[in-house]
Amino acid sequence: MSENNKKATPLSDLGEFGLIKKLTEPFKIKSSSVVKGIGDDAAIIKPDDNEILVTTDLLAEGVHFDLVYTPLQHLGYKAVIANLSDIYAMGGKPMHITVSLAVSSKFSVEALEQLYDGIRRACERYNVDLIGGDTTSSLTGLIISITAVGEVEKGKSILRNGAKAGDLVCVSGDLGGAYAGLQILKREREVYMINPNSQPDLSKYDYVIGRQLKPEARREVIDMIKQSGLTPTAMIDISDGLSSELLHICKQSGCGVKIYESKLPVDPQTEAVATELNMDATMIAMNGGEDYELLFTIPAEQVEIAGNMAGISIIGQITNEPEAYTLMGRVAGSTRISAQGWEAYKK
Amino acid sequence: MSENNKKATPLSDLGEFGLIKKLTEPFKIKSSSVVKGIGDDAAIIKPDDNEILVTTDLLAEGVHFDLVYTPLQHLGYKAVIANLSDIYAMGGKPMHITVSLAVSSKFSVEALEQLYDGIRRACERYNVDLIGGDTTSSLTGLIISITAVGEVEKGKSILRNGAKAGDLVCVSGDLGGAYAGLQILKREREVYMINPNSQPDLSKYDYVIGRQLKPEARREVIDMIKQSGLTPTAMIDISDGLSSELLHICKQSGCGVKIYESKLPVDPQTEAVATELNMDATMIAMNGGEDYELLFTIPAEQVEIAGNMAGISIIGQITNEPEAYTLMGRVAGSTRISAQGWEAYKK
Repeated sequence: MSENNKKATPLSDLGEFGLIKKLTEPFKIKSSSVVKGIGDDAAIIKPDDNEILVTTDLLAEGVHFDLVYTPLQHLGYKAVIANLSDIYAMGGKPMHITVSLAVSSKFSVEALEQLYDGIRRACERYNVDLIGGDTTSSLTGLIISITAVGEVEKGKSILRNGAKAGDLVCVSGDLGGAYAGLQILKREREVYMINPNSQPDLSKYDYVIGRQLKPEARREVIDMIKQSGLTPTAMIDISDGLSSELLHICKQSGCGVKIYESKLPVDPQTEAVATELNMDATMIAMNGGEDYELLFTIPAEQVEIAGNMAGISIIGQITNEPEAYTLMGRVAGSTRISAQGWEAYKK
Repeated sequence: MSENNKKATPLSDLGEFGLIKKLTEPFKIKSSSVVKGIGDDAAIIKPDDNEILVTTDLLAEGVHFDLVYTPLQHLGYKAVIANLSDIYAMGGKPMHITVSLAVSSKFSVEALEQLYDGIRRACERYNVDLIGGDTTSSLTGLIISITAVGEVEKGKSILRNGAKAGDLVCVSGDLGGAYAGLQILKREREVYMINPNSQPDLSKYDYVIGRQLKPEARREVIDMIKQSGLTPTAMIDISDGLSSELLHICKQSGCGVKIYESKLPVDPQTEAVATELNMDATMIAMNGGEDYELLFTIPAEQVEIAGNMAGISIIGQITNEPEAYTLMGRVAGSTRISAQGWEAYKK
């Protein structure tokens, strides 16, 4: 963290307004929908004749991230991604974000510049404008609260509650990688605590660590869905784990689900980490969380379209039995799916 | 705080989703502009053919509020007001809010219900819908991050940068009360720390304490302005203190300002507290902050309209001398106005 910086300017050197100016100056407004960005009581936006999507996520140090193994650029990038992913999960297009920080005096100006550099990279990659925020002190640690605003054609949002019996359950990308990466980082943290001079070779974990530290939002999946003619009946992003998100769709749609263990997309590196750490790869894939992949249901007659789509796996089917959430084993047997995703207040 | 509650249910009893459900259930959607509120990846809103305003504010325990003297209902109410005030300061109409919390396990479910009760009261009074949020744990204390979304007729926002030489400077309500109230509360906190059984009689401070703990946003001032035909050239709300906000308008408009000490509206109770605490009432009025009054400039020819308007004071005039910010003394002499408003990182 800040100890790695050559310069460490205290936040108090700039004051609140000076700090905000310094952090937000590198951001250039890209969209003509922004009438007024940072610098007034509120931002002004003029969307096309669309519906507006609003979502918000808050990340707290020590709860959602550990700065021992999370570079600040990556943290800024990921905090934006978590919000954009929610807009994509509605079938929408993210347009604007606001970023609020509460930050203790242990952080330097340069540290926050790194954080904002990550935020800016995500904004550039996803063509999103930073239009406002608030920056204040906290007694301890760092809190990042981001709100994303997006647009979607009127009536075209994909909600969680539209899944119907017979629909196929699809997921983009692969599952459990972010969780596997987190386990490796936590293990290395323990090693570091014992021997701060250790120089671990993490290259064989590069994929899963990347999934944890620098996830992407699945914009191209939304593009592919639109171009292919798929008409998802329900959609959600996987932030808390597949099990938890499946249950959200089923409960809100009033249906059940059967998932086939053999169909779960798991990267070989995730499998290898599971074996190394003596964990069950299926368990990680079902409950891992933070993959920011898209989980969606489609009418059964679209099986061929989805089946031919790169990076999309058909993993199960919606049933008409409410509250029957079943994982069909690879060889035999079945297990009831329950939400074991990370919940902030669960003991 | 929670020690005052008969029941104190740990947050872990409910889990994240159970807690969000319990806290948000009492909120009923009022506006037809809300297509989908809480319960999906993002909220969906369909504004009229207006421009959209977005503003966000973050309050941190120990920095912005002290729970020793801040009842949780009031805190929830005030956190909403701080955001609505920013929407009004653009000449807009607040429509929706999202509320994100980071909260440590020292808080009970009942304590958060009190907080949300205050949020709900503000939403009802100002006809605003809660459409989303995030609730998570924190290692220490309470952080509240609110984003407000509002609407304004296309091109009708009142920015900070439109003030012109000759314009009159107006302010609603009175100044310094919230700061005076805070000083009384801080004093009583010291007494309480020494003698927890003390029963202070705060009735003679009721107005200023109310200004601190339960401020209102000045919706009716916006209504009055519209009805009267006033056309403000610049507007801002007073959250950081009159001096600080004057400088924002002047710097963004490229002009100077003369303020007349004798014209500053100060409530007699604020004056009395200043005297009692051996502070200068003008200093409090200029730099107090948190009054959530509206500061605006109008063309000089509208002097009679503003002069006849209840609750509006004309306190000075915009000049064509950039960077000349002058407070003209009550009897004689003048002082340069500088921003001494509360800045989060100033030493």
